[in-house]
Amino acid sequence: MKLYEQLCEELSSRIEQGYYQVGDKLPSIRAMSKEHEVSISTVQEAYQLLEANGLVQSKPKSGYYVLAASETPSLPDISRPVQRPLEVSQWELVLKLLCSHEREGLVALGKGMPDVSAATLKPLLKILSDLNRHSDLRSLSYDSLRGSDELRLQIARLSVDSGCRLHPDDIVVTTGCQEALSCSMRAVTEPGDVVAVDSPSFYGSMQTIKALGLKALEIPTHPETGISLEALEMALEQWPVKAIQVTPVCNNPLGYTMPDERKRRLLYLAQQNDIPIIEDDIYGDLAYHYPRPRTIKSFDDDGRVMLCSSVSKTLAPGLRVGWVAPGRYGEMLLHMKYVSTAASATLPQRAVAEFIAQGGYERHLRKMRAQYQQGRDRMLDWIRRYFPSSTRVSYPQGGFLLWVELPEGFDSVKLNDRLLQQEISIAPGVLFSASGKYRNCMRLNFTEVADSRIETAISIIGEQVKRLLVEESLVAS
Amino acid sequence: MKLYEQLCEELSSRIEQGYYQVGDKLPSIRAMSKEHEVSISTVQEAYQLLEANGLVQSKPKSGYYVLAASETPSLPDISRPVQRPLEVSQWELVLKLLCSHEREGLVALGKGMPDVSAATLKPLLKILSDLNRHSDLRSLSYDSLRGSDELRLQIARLSVDSGCRLHPDDIVVTTGCQEALSCSMRAVTEPGDVVAVDSPSFYGSMQTIKALGLKALEIPTHPETGISLEALEMALEQWPVKAIQVTPVCNNPLGYTMPDERKRRLLYLAQQNDIPIIEDDIYGDLAYHYPRPRTIKSFDDDGRVMLCSSVSKTLAPGLRVGWVAPGRYGEMLLHMKYVSTAASATLPQRAVAEFIAQGGYERHLRKMRAQYQQGRDRMLDWIRRYFPSSTRVSYPQGGFLLWVELPEGFDSVKLNDRLLQQEISIAPGVLFSASGKYRNCMRLNFTEVADSRIETAISIIGEQVKRLLVEESLVAS
Repeated sequence: MKLYEQLCEELSSRIEQGYYQVGDKLPSIRAMSKEHEVSISTVQEAYQLLEANGLVQSKPKSGYYVLAASETPSLPDISRPVQRPLEVSQWELVLKLLCSHEREGLVALGKGMPDVSAATLKPLLKILSDLNRHSDLRSLSYDSLRGSDELRLQIARLSVDSGCRLHPDDIVVTTGCQEALSCSMRAVTEPGDVVAVDSPSFYGSMQTIKALGLKALEIPTHPETGISLEALEMALEQWPVKAIQVTPVCNNPLGYTMPDERKRRLLYLAQQNDIPIIEDDIYGDLAYHYPRPRTIKSFDDDGRVMLCSSVSKTLAPGLRVGWVAPGRYGEMLLHMKYVSTAASATLPQRAVAEFIAQGGYERHLRKMRAQYQQGRDRMLDWIRRYFPSSTRVSYPQGGFLLWVELPEGFDSVKLNDRLLQQEISIAPGVLFSASGKYRNCMRLNFTEVADSRIETAISIIGEQVKRLLVEESLVAS
Repeated sequence: MKLYEQLCEELSSRIEQGYYQVGDKLPSIRAMSKEHEVSISTVQEAYQLLEANGLVQSKPKSGYYVLAASETPSLPDISRPVQRPLEVSQWELVLKLLCSHEREGLVALGKGMPDVSAATLKPLLKILSDLNRHSDLRSLSYDSLRGSDELRLQIARLSVDSGCRLHPDDIVVTTGCQEALSCSMRAVTEPGDVVAVDSPSFYGSMQTIKALGLKALEIPTHPETGISLEALEMALEQWPVKAIQVTPVCNNPLGYTMPDERKRRLLYLAQQNDIPIIEDDIYGDLAYHYPRPRTIKSFDDDGRVMLCSSVSKTLAPGLRVGWVAPGRYGEMLLHMKYVSTAASATLPQRAVAEFIAQGGYERHLRKMRAQYQQGRDRMLDWIRRYFPSSTRVSYPQGGFLLWVELPEGFDSVKLNDRLLQQEISIAPGVLFSASGKYRNCMRLNFTEVADSRIETAISIIGEQVKRLLVEESLVAS
């Protein structure tokens, strides 16, 4: 961690602990520089980082002031999924969701698609264009089975930010994170095996479990700290679990980041039971706080964590550039990757490698982190305004997804059917469970910059939610 | 079939049946036009097609003359694989082959990579470049789960050439043919199931069988007419076969095209036993005779053929643009595709669609068909010259792969190890079998235009082959 990051972290603790109160002015840059015996520019950078993290606000010609933590609706309860291994259902609903996104003009709040219109992505388009301008034939040839050397080098370099020390040869490039997840799962399980998952959980991994003939054991999950280690420990004693699949940083759909201490304990549990962990880190680089949180992989000392990620949420999903660091399961993973697609498309790999090397990735992320954090606050504000007061909402620490919980008995599948008639879609919560739980929940994205079209859509959803609650006699009319 | 194609076919039969003998001059264009009551230009096109198919040669200011069928070495015998379902081995050898291709400067005669340096591919590079020049954001977004609409339209249009009538919605785009094959296999089998395959068979499909925990039942296969229907029929009676996987047109590695009558009978067998056929047509558009041969899919009247293909051999493998027409198994196929990679990269799909729409695909194929046919004849000539006379060789009807058979007991794995020290690679025959058969065989490609480097490599291989035969006492020294 750099000096200014250390300072920022220390000041954040002071604010949290109340040494600086809401509205207080922070010491002047000069005073702070003396107090901590660091340079003026270090303090300036630390203050800017505090502001980027939403803790203070700068007032021109005056200084930095502590902000109020914004008032937020209640968090969802810890989840209570069925406590036994289950076959995954819901493929038809997932297919319906995926196909609905293809409709022109739809306000698709259900999809997990980042904003690709930012100016900071333009250099990537230029690279894609330039790479083919000079009749360079490399893009036409198979890339190596492990993926482009340049790309694996850049991914290894970026992984330092999450506390990892990966060598390029520790990495296998995949066609998006979905291929990383399905190849990882195939590498360590056989049909009939039980996989423990956080719950709610990304429908792509749930469908992988289904397609591979596995059973999902959904573990209660807390909306701030993630998978319950206590429940997981009991489950591991009771069931022959063959793998643990989790998204500990910027979770999809709940948005939490597990505290490091819990990541360590999860890893320890996996070690005690000699089970691999499949760690989905696809949203990890979109954490609002910088430097970004560590992965479980960064604590992994015996190679049992298979880290899966991609640029689908950070840059653009149409590139289909993902990767996996499979640890000790590398040999089997490579076989599964070969059988899956032989190699991934060459051109997007080269373009992403070049974009990262030029510094474009970090520049773009700085912009998107801020945009999505503002998006979260705006979305929470709209939910407060347009949804019934009984609504519970997650408080994402990164990414662009919100989890909304309505009273037990509410039917978000029915809600979605009605919304589609008004050219709006949500992701019904039931997609995120093996057993059809979370029918009273939904996932919404907040990728867009301020846009009255989105606010209108949220108000329409709120209206329909209220109507459904009344119809189903879930509230007094 | 167009008029000039009909005429060409009729004249081809006459040549085959001896009505026109080697060295004969064909009737003048005017005479032929009168005889068949067709236009001058129809005859001209028919004669040009005859020449492209290698049956006649034009002599300037004289006319078209019938060519001698070139003298070729003996064909390999019909294969005699083990007649029971087997687990597939050989992954380490496949991996070694794949990795060896990444070595700089290697004369990689073992790989299945087309020539991507032809001028007729340049427009494709231009399209790839132009698509990103105007900051069009479509390439950054997920394409639909089934794949780009434009591409599926073009694939459906091209499929007419192989006798099919596919609707764009009958097609699912995949990340190369490998994903088409593995998703198809997953859609119709469960671990432990038996799959009947032609033998020798592409190592990618064999490894798919391995990775999915299936068993391969290798069926004797004739080097000119393909999988033995008699042997297959007996096998279907004896074993609980769940799918048949074949490459009937421009087979890899043997190069044959099954006669239509045998394709029909194979389909009938599948229907009688209610089994799906997975048809790999990846080399089909590279048949030397135009119009190209029909697929089994073109006879399919109850949707049991899953047709898999890609542009990896016709255009360029680095694009990873493949597809499958899954027939009645479409729903399951789509699930497997979603779990495999969610979507395929957007940009290459759009570029290929545009290239086909502009006519670039057919223009390129015309060139490559001629190049590969010349390559085949040159390679056969070199084999005759540099290999021992006991060598048997396939006589490919399309594509760019040759199957070379040496006396029983010959070890092509050992040969490859020695050749690698001289910066040459071959594909050892053992990769094309579940059980380690065909160790006395090898696959060579002949993609390159005339090149003394290749001839030198072939002469070195021939030299090493002779040395090994002597060392192993397979011939008198």
